[in-house]
Amino acid sequence: MKLLKSRILQEAEIPEPGVLKVDMFLNHQIDVSLLNEIGKEFYRRFANDNVNKILTVEASGIGIACIAAQYFGVPVVFAKKGINRNVGNDVYSGKAVSFTKCDCPVIGVSKRYLSEEDRVLILDDFLAHGSALMLLSDIVRQSGAELVGAGIVIEKAFQPGGKKLREAGLRIESLAVIKSMDNGLIVFDE
Amino acid sequence: MKLLKSRILQEAEIPEPGVLKVDMFLNHQIDVSLLNEIGKEFYRRFANDNVNKILTVEASGIGIACIAAQYFGVPVVFAKKGINRNVGNDVYSGKAVSFTKCDCPVIGVSKRYLSEEDRVLILDDFLAHGSALMLLSDIVRQSGAELVGAGIVIEKAFQPGGKKLREAGLRIESLAVIKSMDNGLIVFDE
Repeated sequence: MKLLKSRILQEAEIPEPGVLKVDMFLNHQIDVSLLNEIGKEFYRRFANDNVNKILTVEASGIGIACIAAQYFGVPVVFAKKGINRNVGNDVYSGKAVSFTKCDCPVIGVSKRYLSEEDRVLILDDFLAHGSALMLLSDIVRQSGAELVGAGIVIEKAFQPGGKKLREAGLRIESLAVIKSMDNGLIVFDE
Repeated sequence: MKLLKSRILQEAEIPEPGVLKVDMFLNHQIDVSLLNEIGKEFYRRFANDNVNKILTVEASGIGIACIAAQYFGVPVVFAKKGINRNVGNDVYSGKAVSFTKCDCPVIGVSKRYLSEEDRVLILDDFLAHGSALMLLSDIVRQSGAELVGAGIVIEKAFQPGGKKLREAGLRIESLAVIKSMDNGLIVFDE
């Protein structure tokens, strides 16, 4: 996706090796018009898959999922981090190896909102080591729903998540795939 | 807002006194078509206020803010909970008395994304005791930006946040104001 890649090249920062900071347009300040283009592109790629629910995880995935859901005409469900009394105990859940913040590595989705009748598309901002995507995939598996695939805004292909999950059979559509970002130079995969 | 109130009456649950559960359409599963009506209504109420930025706090506020931002044609900034190395140290921040989950009561916004040139509208899902809204208002004050007002989806008027903040001069537009919800009966303010 050309527009996204040019925004990354123009604005993204690499505060330390391996870390890509895009909080000027994606995950702290959000450029909603860019999200609309991202949502359209996800729809173009998954339009024929009869998706009836979009699943993401708080927090950065929510805006992406909500804007994209307008094109699909389906509801969003977001997995919650940490323990939340409002979710109740009746949840599908998984425990992450790591998250960038908070001591709440357990994510969960109420059993009310995913079932074997659903055809689920997972959307998220980043794919690197794949821990969030693995958890979300496992939550879909627990629910008995059909996992159509995953749409990712930025994939770091130099980290192992994408390869591992594709080998496990998951269809992943990443809109910008970064092959390397050594010495401050961002190189896309295609 | 009639549509919202009827959804609350039809679907919301009161799992314990004082707690309103709307996670079937607002803050776990999200009905994006309802969010669009909510976004339009916020725009109707704040269309003439020259808002150039919408501020919210993760997680439930993000979907609401992103969908509403489409009508305003402005970016969203969401305050982050907890410590996040990607935000950096250069933040406006505040510490909440309480949040419903996680041990991360500090919220922060990078100084890059709010400044005295901004005219800010705060959007959030709930107003009850007002701690999130107080923190967000204080973050806007720290930045020197103009705080145009706050748009709230559901206000619990039987809790003190709204009264306190209006008395302090904040313009608050709540789309559904709940006067009481004793014995499982939800009564709106108007």
